[in-house]
Amino acid sequence: MADRQLYFQNLALTVGAAHSRYGAIPVTETQTPHTELAGEPFSAEIYSDDGSVRADFLDRVVASVQHGDVEALASSVAGLHESELGDLIEALDAEDRRSLVIQLGDRFDFSSLTEVDEAIRMDIIEALPNEQVAHALKALDSDDAVYILEDLAEKDQAEILAKLPFTERIRLRRSLDYPEESAGRRMQTEFVAVPPYWSVGQTIDYLRDSEDLPHSFSQIFVIDPTFHLVGAVDLDQILRTPRPVKIEEIMHETRHAIPAEMDQEEAALIFEQYDLLSAAVVDENERLVGVLTIDDVVDVIQAEAEEDLKRLGGVGDEELSDSVIETTRSRFTWLLINLATAILASVVIGLFDATITEMVALAVLMPIVASMGGNAGTQTMTVAVRALATRDIDIYNASRIVRRELTVGFINGVIFAAVMGLVAALWFSSLSLGIVIGLAMIVNMVCAALAGILIPLLLDRIGIDPAIASSVFVTTVTDIVGFFAFLGLAGWWFGI
Amino acid sequence: MADRQLYFQNLALTVGAAHSRYGAIPVTETQTPHTELAGEPFSAEIYSDDGSVRADFLDRVVASVQHGDVEALASSVAGLHESELGDLIEALDAEDRRSLVIQLGDRFDFSSLTEVDEAIRMDIIEALPNEQVAHALKALDSDDAVYILEDLAEKDQAEILAKLPFTERIRLRRSLDYPEESAGRRMQTEFVAVPPYWSVGQTIDYLRDSEDLPHSFSQIFVIDPTFHLVGAVDLDQILRTPRPVKIEEIMHETRHAIPAEMDQEEAALIFEQYDLLSAAVVDENERLVGVLTIDDVVDVIQAEAEEDLKRLGGVGDEELSDSVIETTRSRFTWLLINLATAILASVVIGLFDATITEMVALAVLMPIVASMGGNAGTQTMTVAVRALATRDIDIYNASRIVRRELTVGFINGVIFAAVMGLVAALWFSSLSLGIVIGLAMIVNMVCAALAGILIPLLLDRIGIDPAIASSVFVTTVTDIVGFFAFLGLAGWWFGI
Repeated sequence: MADRQLYFQNLALTVGAAHSRYGAIPVTETQTPHTELAGEPFSAEIYSDDGSVRADFLDRVVASVQHGDVEALASSVAGLHESELGDLIEALDAEDRRSLVIQLGDRFDFSSLTEVDEAIRMDIIEALPNEQVAHALKALDSDDAVYILEDLAEKDQAEILAKLPFTERIRLRRSLDYPEESAGRRMQTEFVAVPPYWSVGQTIDYLRDSEDLPHSFSQIFVIDPTFHLVGAVDLDQILRTPRPVKIEEIMHETRHAIPAEMDQEEAALIFEQYDLLSAAVVDENERLVGVLTIDDVVDVIQAEAEEDLKRLGGVGDEELSDSVIETTRSRFTWLLINLATAILASVVIGLFDATITEMVALAVLMPIVASMGGNAGTQTMTVAVRALATRDIDIYNASRIVRRELTVGFINGVIFAAVMGLVAALWFSSLSLGIVIGLAMIVNMVCAALAGILIPLLLDRIGIDPAIASSVFVTTVTDIVGFFAFLGLAGWWFGI
Repeated sequence: MADRQLYFQNLALTVGAAHSRYGAIPVTETQTPHTELAGEPFSAEIYSDDGSVRADFLDRVVASVQHGDVEALASSVAGLHESELGDLIEALDAEDRRSLVIQLGDRFDFSSLTEVDEAIRMDIIEALPNEQVAHALKALDSDDAVYILEDLAEKDQAEILAKLPFTERIRLRRSLDYPEESAGRRMQTEFVAVPPYWSVGQTIDYLRDSEDLPHSFSQIFVIDPTFHLVGAVDLDQILRTPRPVKIEEIMHETRHAIPAEMDQEEAALIFEQYDLLSAAVVDENERLVGVLTIDDVVDVIQAEAEEDLKRLGGVGDEELSDSVIETTRSRFTWLLINLATAILASVVIGLFDATITEMVALAVLMPIVASMGGNAGTQTMTVAVRALATRDIDIYNASRIVRRELTVGFINGVIFAAVMGLVAALWFSSLSLGIVIGLAMIVNMVCAALAGILIPLLLDRIGIDPAIASSVFVTTVTDIVGFFAFLGLAGWWFGI
């Protein structure tokens, strides 16, 4: 036994080198590969190669649902991870989806509802009696329960909460009292906390004896009797420390406690910056009220990145499952604003209608000037919006970046002015026209660079999300400047 | 003591409810608030309110660097988190930056270099002798060391590796042998693994006795003597289990082992789907070679979201610290492609030059039709590209989404056709012109919807990242269709 242990100790320590192609592979037992392994992840059972739910699996589930064969249904979904069940639900049509949840009853894993689109979640919850929803929420972690509750109508929310036991009701209600998208909404109120004077041994004994621990945890918090946070200990620290050592000797100060009111995006930035797995959430009196975990933060990071991308693309917080009406509405505002700015640009063109009538080549070429400016401006703006979101632009580099953008805009302006000037001169056999479009391009691309960087900076400064509004301002500038510069220069040059 | 423990046990279990505004706050000792707490996170010392490095702190560091006062410098940066030190480095100018690293020597925390832009990292590494870099890398986790090494020139990389001890060299080289952006590149080769027949007590004793454990870990892997992965145990599971229980009784099968060759983006999707904190990385023979941790995955998720956003905005993988030349080059290709498509659209306009000469209002109005189509197409495309990136579009919903987009495009087309038709009719006192522009808008917005959804789907199907190429195709379609529909209809209607 002793040499076995030694072997494995050695293995644990040198594992990095031991079975590289350069080193020997220690073999002491059989080499028969294990079957439930990497090559066959469990998820392979429900997903096809392109990542969608496998058709035959889906058919089996649909058949069970439609024949009301609850046992077959239950055995099909047994053992699915909540996210797999969520994907299955999303792949079903609305009626089968509701049927599945109703038929499974208590055997339906409610946490899967945190993995589906909001529209689908609402549809299912509304199909269920509030009684059943309340019963199901009891089994969930508080953060999942809040996630499901927060989008419900006030009335349903209150009814469901009223059916919950006192302590759970209080916990959930407190989370719901924090602002939307705050750390308090995303935190889990189940956590483990011990006093600083406990020993490691005492803590481990306590964990072994407790029957009501959170489903999982990666940190133990240290608090004083008034619930003020004193520090935290990572579990690996506890495991490598001898039993008699006091917790206060191995704990680290919690430098990054998250106020419950803090916006989730800001909390996510702290997690990212300090590579946290979990962080204490404290109330306004700095007392521990919950724990924010990295898996929720990952969802926040994804959601925020998605929000920026969608806002830049001019779509609201629509989801793939939204109906035609919702989608039309969510895109309407942006299109209306774009129409207004497009008309504005047209008015600029209208100023030069006499010039265009004299020289129709101007009408043919003018979209090129506007389009190149629009693209150059969008490039600069994309970089600026992203850098603002990740807080990579600050007072130290802002002026350097503005200078850089101006220079880049000028250089690209000159290059493309030359190219396009040549094309235009050859196309319309007019050197003058080539010179005019070249000059207009340089003017517009420099303005595009300026607009692309200054507009997001300005919007950010006055507290408007640059992702949501930059695009429309930038393209308005580049359209108007583009048309004005090109048509104006042409009118002056050709004396029309 | 006993009742204290009971009190705290109770506290640990009921902590969620106990100090809500509804419940009583148990107070048994002093209420004096602790000082090193949440309200004063340590980071407050170096950051100002807008998140940039505080000016006075920066000045102090710059003064120390420029006066060569190494002791003052060392005490200023002592205790900074690697990401804080990274931010400080980014705030310095190039010369002070190199000075700081050289002056600090062994006291410089190299892991901070994983937190700065690539250009800055390269600049610093190149300023240091390879000897010193090798010495510094020895102290880093293998994933950080690989991150720093992977961007270096082959020659420097080989020289630095040659100066490392055998086992470390082998580990790093193996990671570097995996493809760029693979799980093998991002994994940490330090981990803890035990045999399945060990008891919990034996495992804990082993952890207490070992002197060479990884800096931190959140999972213990279970392997057989041939290094094949058998399962894994989360640390909280070990802590809540009595000593005599065997590891194999509490381990869970590793369903989500990550092949080292797997692309990091795919690995990140697995982490997200299954809410993993860490995952085993296995080689082609399914033997454990490393561990991928969530903090690295968070960086991957951020980087991938950023990549999509930048690609949609038409900028390459440029960074804020890139020089004018690099930035100009990174944006050039996209602008060149845009110029080509803009010229194509102009050729379409050129087909109708006679029509425009007859009726200059067409030149004034035509950019509106193109612009509205461009925006509607971009909206659809943004949603499609994002859904493809997160694998939310699959064979079950693709046709539904195409139908939805077509309907939304048609509805918005009709609405904006009516608005713009009215505006045009009043502006140019011509009902006919209003009808023509309205019809052209409907045609273009339906085509925009089709292009916005089908182009990304098609690109994805043939293996091209839809984020990188969709934008140019979609706006080309909407420009050409917009000009053609409007000018063509007008020519036909007015018989010009």
